[in-house]
Order: sequence, then C-alpha cells, then structure tokens
Amino acid sequence: MKSLQNRDVKRAVRSLFEPASVAVVGASDDPSKFGYLLMSNLLEFGYSGRIYPVNRNRETVFGLRCYPTVSAIPGEVEAVIVLVPAQHTPQIMQECVEKGVRGVIICTSGFREAGRDGAELEEKTLQIARKGGIRIAGPNTTGFLNAYNGFTSAFVKISRPRRGNVSVISQTGMFASVLLEHIMSTQPFGLSKVAGLGNKADIDDADVLEYYEDDEDTEVIVIYAEGIRDGRRFLEVSKRVARKKPIIILKSARSHSGGRAALTHTGSLMVRDEVFDAVCRSAGLIRVEDIEELIDLAKAFAFLPAPRGERVGVIAYTGAGCVMSADAVERYGLKLAAPTQETMERLRRHAPSFGILSNPLDAELVRQGVGDPQASLIISLEAFLSDPEVDMVSLVLVGLTKESKIWDVDIDVVFPKIRERFPEKPLVVTNLASRQVMDEYREKLEQLGIPVYPSLLRNIRALSALSNYYGRLRH
Amino acid sequence: MKSLQNRDVKRAVRSLFEPASVAVVGASDDPSKFGYLLMSNLLEFGYSGRIYPVNRNRETVFGLRCYPTVSAIPGEVEAVIVLVPAQHTPQIMQECVEKGVRGVIICTSGFREAGRDGAELEEKTLQIARKGGIRIAGPNTTGFLNAYNGFTSAFVKISRPRRGNVSVISQTGMFASVLLEHIMSTQPFGLSKVAGLGNKADIDDADVLEYYEDDEDTEVIVIYAEGIRDGRRFLEVSKRVARKKPIIILKSARSHSGGRAALTHTGSLMVRDEVFDAVCRSAGLIRVEDIEELIDLAKAFAFLPAPRGERVGVIAYTGAGCVMSADAVERYGLKLAAPTQETMERLRRHAPSFGILSNPLDAELVRQGVGDPQASLIISLEAFLSDPEVDMVSLVLVGLTKESKIWDVDIDVVFPKIRERFPEKPLVVTNLASRQVMDEYREKLEQLGIPVYPSLLRNIRALSALSNYYGRLRH
Repeated sequence: MKSLQNRDVKRAVRSLFEPASVAVVGASDDPSKFGYLLMSNLLEFGYSGRIYPVNRNRETVFGLRCYPTVSAIPGEVEAVIVLVPAQHTPQIMQECVEKGVRGVIICTSGFREAGRDGAELEEKTLQIARKGGIRIAGPNTTGFLNAYNGFTSAFVKISRPRRGNVSVISQTGMFASVLLEHIMSTQPFGLSKVAGLGNKADIDDADVLEYYEDDEDTEVIVIYAEGIRDGRRFLEVSKRVARKKPIIILKSARSHSGGRAALTHTGSLMVRDEVFDAVCRSAGLIRVEDIEELIDLAKAFAFLPAPRGERVGVIAYTGAGCVMSADAVERYGLKLAAPTQETMERLRRHAPSFGILSNPLDAELVRQGVGDPQASLIISLEAFLSDPEVDMVSLVLVGLTKESKIWDVDIDVVFPKIRERFPEKPLVVTNLASRQVMDEYREKLEQLGIPVYPSLLRNIRALSALSNYYGRLRH
Repeated sequence: MKSLQNRDVKRAVRSLFEPASVAVVGASDDPSKFGYLLMSNLLEFGYSGRIYPVNRNRETVFGLRCYPTVSAIPGEVEAVIVLVPAQHTPQIMQECVEKGVRGVIICTSGFREAGRDGAELEEKTLQIARKGGIRIAGPNTTGFLNAYNGFTSAFVKISRPRRGNVSVISQTGMFASVLLEHIMSTQPFGLSKVAGLGNKADIDDADVLEYYEDDEDTEVIVIYAEGIRDGRRFLEVSKRVARKKPIIILKSARSHSGGRAALTHTGSLMVRDEVFDAVCRSAGLIRVEDIEELIDLAKAFAFLPAPRGERVGVIAYTGAGCVMSADAVERYGLKLAAPTQETMERLRRHAPSFGILSNPLDAELVRQGVGDPQASLIISLEAFLSDPEVDMVSLVLVGLTKESKIWDVDIDVVFPKIRERFPEKPLVVTNLASRQVMDEYREKLEQLGIPVYPSLLRNIRALSALSNYYGRLRH
C-alpha cells in the first residue's frame, strides 16, 4: 500500500510540473482577478499543453472556450488549478475525481491556516481526493512553475524565469513568486522548477524532493519551509537526495512567536528548532538563516565546481581585507591554504623588498612591485589558482571610482582568461567600491559564472558551504 | 604631566582636522604620484587654509609656490602631511619640530608593519616628535578628512563627501577612503570627519574619540580597528563618549590568523577577542561583525530617533515575512509588541472575517479587506505607529514589478505623511522585489530619513542595536 501511494504521488507531482492539459477553475477576463493574472501568465509563458478555463459566468476567457464546470470539459484533464473561494472546493474536488484528474493545485486560502472551520473544510476536501486517488498541492499557495515547459499556477503577474539549474520548494506561494522576480532581476542564475506547497495538506517537501532527485534540469535545490508534515519521511528522502544534489533550506518558525505566526500563516505545527537542526545535520542539508544567505548559496552551488578541500587562498587589495578574510576563514571553519614555496617565490619576485607576503596575500604589494594593477591581479590570481595547495580562492577588490588612477583594470581582459584556465577551482569575488563600479563588476563577472558578493564575509560563507557539502560527499 | 599630554593631543587632533595651514611633503604635478592625488583632493574639496607644497625638484605644484623643505616655508605651519619614502621621515620630523608644527600625518608605509628595520625607523621618528611636542597620525595611513572645511590628507582620488552626522575612525587608510566612496554612492547618510590612524604610533582611537565627543557635527561614531594601543585608556574614554554618542565598532584580527595578518598590515598586536568583547560590553560599544553591519547600523543611528523601549510592531505583506520577522525579533533579543485592543479592533474592521490578525500583522489580510494596497498600507502603519504599546516598527513589503496589479502604491503619497506624523518612532523598511522596485523604494524612502534594508533580518538587527543602545542610556 505504501509503495503504491509513493508511486501515486510521484506521478501526481510529475503531472503538476508537466501536465499535458490543465483546467483553471476561476479563470477570468477581469484584470482585477487572480484568475486573470494566472491565465495571462500561462499564455505568456507559452505553456504548450491544453488550457481549459472554467467559469460559470463566461463563454470564453482570453479567447479560449470556457466551461461551467470541470465535468463539462470534453477531453482528458491531467491537472486542475483552483482559484475560487474555499467553500466550493469539496464540490470541485468531487468533479475532479469523476474526471480522472491526477493532481489538483488549490491556490485558495481560508483553510487550516484560518482556524477550525477552515481545517474541517481542508480535511473534507482531502478525504474526497484520497478516495479518488487525487493528490493535492496546497491549499493556500501559488503552486507550481516549470521554467522549461512554461507551465505555471502563479496568480500574481510574473515574468517567465530564465531557465537554469536551481529548483525551489517554498511553503508560501506569494513568497515564491516574489522571490522569483527578485532572483530574476538581481541574480545571474536561472531556475528550473518552483513548487509552492502552502498548507501541505497532502503533497509535502519530500514528495517534490523525489521528483527533483530524478529531474535532469535540477542541480541545486532550495527550500523555504515553516513546517514539515512527516519528519521521518523528510529525513529519509532528503538524506538520499542530498547525496546527489545540494539542498539549501531556510526553515522559519524557529522561535515561539515565529511558530505562532506560522500557525496562522500555513497552519504549520512547530518543530523544536534543535530537533530540526539535528535533522539537517543528519541528512546533510545546508541550513541558512535568511533569504540573503539562501540566494548567496544557491548562486555558489549553481555556478561553482566542487572544491577538492577546505583550504582557501585569499587575495585582497587592502590590508584590512586580509585581516578580516583571515578572521572569516576561521569563523566559517575553513583553513587558510599554505601555498607552495614556488608560489610564494614567484609572488615575491614581483613585490617590493619590504613587503611581507603570505596568505591572505596583500596584492597591493604586488601592485606596487609591478607598478600596474592589472598585471598584479593576473599574477596573484594565477599564482593561487594554479597552486595545488589552494582549493578555492576569495578575491577582495577595492574598486574606487572609475576616475581613480589607482585601480585601472580591464575586467573583460582579465577574467574570461582566468575563468577559462582554471575552471576546476572555485573563485568568488567581492568588490568594495562605488555602487557603479560594484554593479559593473557584478554583472560582468557573474556572466562569466564567477559569483560576486557584497562582502568578504559572504564570500567566505559561500566557500564554506561548498567545502562542507562536497567534503561530506567524499567521506 | 599626563593631563598636559592630554591637552597636547587634543590640540593636535584639532590641528589635524581644522588646520589653518598645511605643508604637503611629496606634493607633485605628476598624475601617477600620490602627491598629485592628495593635492588634487585638497584643492577640489575647497580647503580654505593655506597649502604649502614641499618638493625639492619643483618650483610650483598645481600653480602653488613649492618649497624644497618644511624649514624653507616662510609662514607658520600648523599641520604637515608626509608622503615621501619612510627613510626621510626622521629628518622631516626634525624640521617640523624646528618649525613649531603641531600635528604630522605620516601617510608613508614601510614602518612597524614592515618588520624590524621599519619598527626602528618608526620609534626614531616618534622620539623626535615627542621631544619636540609634535603628535603623529600614522604612519601607514590616508590620515584625516573633514567634510565641513574640506581638509583632507587622502592620497587616492576621492570626491568630497556629503556632510552629515557620522564620523569615522579607521585603522586602515586605504580602507577608509574606499569605504567613503562606497558609502557616498550607496548610502543616504553623510559624513562629518574621518580619521585614518594606520600604525597608531602615537595618536590612538581614544584621542580621536575625545575630539568627536565635543564635535557638534558628530552624532554617530564608527570605528574600524585591528589593534588598540592603550586598552585601559580606550575603555575609559569610549565608555564616557558612548554615553553621549553611539559608537559602532568593527574590530578585526579576532582569530589567530587574522592577528597574524594584522601584524604585517598595521603592526597591531593581537588582543584576545573575549577580552575585547568584554571591553565593548563594559563601555557600551556596539560591536559589529562586518562592513555591511557597520553601515546598516550607522544608517539606523544617523536617521532614527531613540525608541522608548524594545517592543517591535511588524507589518508584513506576506505570511512568510511575519513568521521570519517573529523569529528575528526573538533572535535579536527584542520583544513583539502587544498592540492595544483598540488598535487590533481598528485593524479588524478592515480585514475579512476569516483573517487572524496579530503582531506580526499580515497586512495582506487588510489589503484583501479594503481592496486597495495603498489604503491598507496607510491603515496598518497608522495603527501600529500610533499605538503606545509599540516602540518601533518594521515594515516588510513585497513589491513585485511595477506591472503587477497587486501592488499599486504611490510611495510619494504614503511615506512623507507617515514620516511627518510619527517622527518620534523608529520605522525601518525592507522590500523584497525586483531590483528596479527595490532601488526606487530605497532611494525615495531614505531621502525621507527612513532606512531601507535588503532583508527583514537586517531590519530587526538595526532596531535591536537602537533599542539596546538607548535602553542602556536610560538605566
């Protein structure tokens, strides 16, 4: 029975990411309605399956033939999206059962998160679905999105995301859609799939993880969760998946008051935070504290190769950058690399006699020695990136303004070559500079697949996550 | 003797921020020289005192009469900036003594931070200065800057900073100048004074703190330090000053390897980090971990009034924002406010019946109730800001794109009124949105003196620093 149920849910999750046909209950031509925004997303994303608008009061929606009920649809319907008020859901679910639908995304809120009446309604809907062999995503979510085939149930206006290798599981749908816009406009990596799970009445993180496990377009998984329904299964599945693909998880509702807020948000019951921490450690999940860290690490894993160890080489164009980087390396449990004698002699040849070279490398000394910032940058990067004792490199720049005569470097010349010559070694960059210079560096370097962070602490935090994750895989 | 020395150093620090005349040893017309960049900064900043370029090989520099030595200058010289190689420093110092100079900024490096020979040179220079009653800033620093009178010894090209109420003490000069450009182009607050102290052979953090203590243009003090020369005096002075003005300190060289890097950077001896932590607690200093936090808190203190207590009201347009804010409030040792019955009833009148309102307030429910995002935002802000049980407010927005029909708010209408009506209550904002929308909100709100942070965690961290600092003052 259990394994049958598992096969069942796997099939249903696939149906919600890759449906051949979808019915939209609550589809609308009225721009103020969620049903309008959802339809407009689906059509603009170029979803290639069949779309059946369902709305009692309309003949057509967006020029498509509209049906009064799910039952009235002539053909097969693989997935259904529900946008109408909560009280209609049991009736719609009954029709879905009769229609042979596989998966239903209930976007509507007003269920368990809204108190006892809502909880009863949720339970009733779930019972109907269970009996009929239907699996439910939600309720209270924006549901699913697939950047590869253009399918989405997002009912706020969003743009189709760039395709990439990062997939998301988010308990809160609104959050997932906004996060999407945020990532698309601020980050260089692309997305593969997004699952908004809402109240998790049925389909849970573990179910989606099993789909991502085998999805070739997913290489990095990020999760936002307030509660986990079946802790044991989550541990078992996430442990297995984490050995194949990194899983970065932001689990909120850690505190007493956060737990209370989660109860009215997604109806989640609180898990003791120490317990969840233990689950993460045991499963090898990468737990983060906020969205900034979540995105920082997603970028690192989306772009960077596996480091061979935990030894960091730091190149900084400021003594303070050296000092703070050394602190950060220790704080995040990494080691400062001890470069080979050959590397250090090579660097010493370029530095003035009074300069004391070490790791962190004060590259300002190399600059003073060779007289040219660009040459000093290439010499320093090559020295550390080619050193077998250095597993990964953090570069700390101080860019100043463009007018500054001190820092005159053509990044289009330096970095493409560096990236090409040392593809197997993680390199991250930070640049403390004017906004204009920082933006320019970030855009250009990230286009080359080199992550840029706004602080050296975040550089080292990202390298630490990489090193920990891949280090664990080796053991 | 001691109090005389103290009077001495106070006068010298004043001379380095407000000199009536300055000699620049190493001034140059050659754009590749530091002496060029420094002169160009001084002239562009509109420094109104007398400038005496000193350079053996030139008749004029920037059209100003140039002197071969300090001794050759006809008039009085209050301050001297030294940019020539380290080995010439003792001789120059001797001339400064004879000339009756009060303060000398030694920008040159190659002293204690460069090993034994350098340490001897530093000691020799210091002895000459001590005997002659001269106080030294540096060596190995960009020295001083005063945004009010345009004086600077910065030898990398920078723009004159906006005037404001934040003053800086930084051990590393390069760092101070870059940080300046960074702050000017990314932050809304302005600066008053910057002191780069380098090796701190003589003038130390405590000396500059005593100047800032009485400086009317300084309301917030930020410090970057790798080492502190006289721990006892630092504790005594900073404790006194911190009761008048908040002192935010980033002390690096925390770790063993950070300490080693600091030794070759500014010749700083390591202080055990637990000891320094105890100093900060005892003196009431606000210790931060990195530059991002340093700037976050400087902005909060530069803009926000003192909260009356530690009770935070959170308004979030996303359930996840409520949950994570509640976690953050607990993590940073604050309390979630318990709004009055009146406030909650007022809000409930606007929300749909199924909505459960609390603090954190899920303002999305208010939006659904009133049907208009702008009205919901005003209702929510007014409710919490006018509530006597709420000491400060964190607003968590989810802005989406401009095209989104969901979030249609005219911030130019909402926030100026809010800011005007509730000037006595700290309000911070975060907006998870597309880059364009985030930039727009940040710029507009910060112009109104409302700090905007890129994450809700950083919102709460800033409020926590405010609440802790002002709370301590009340006890």
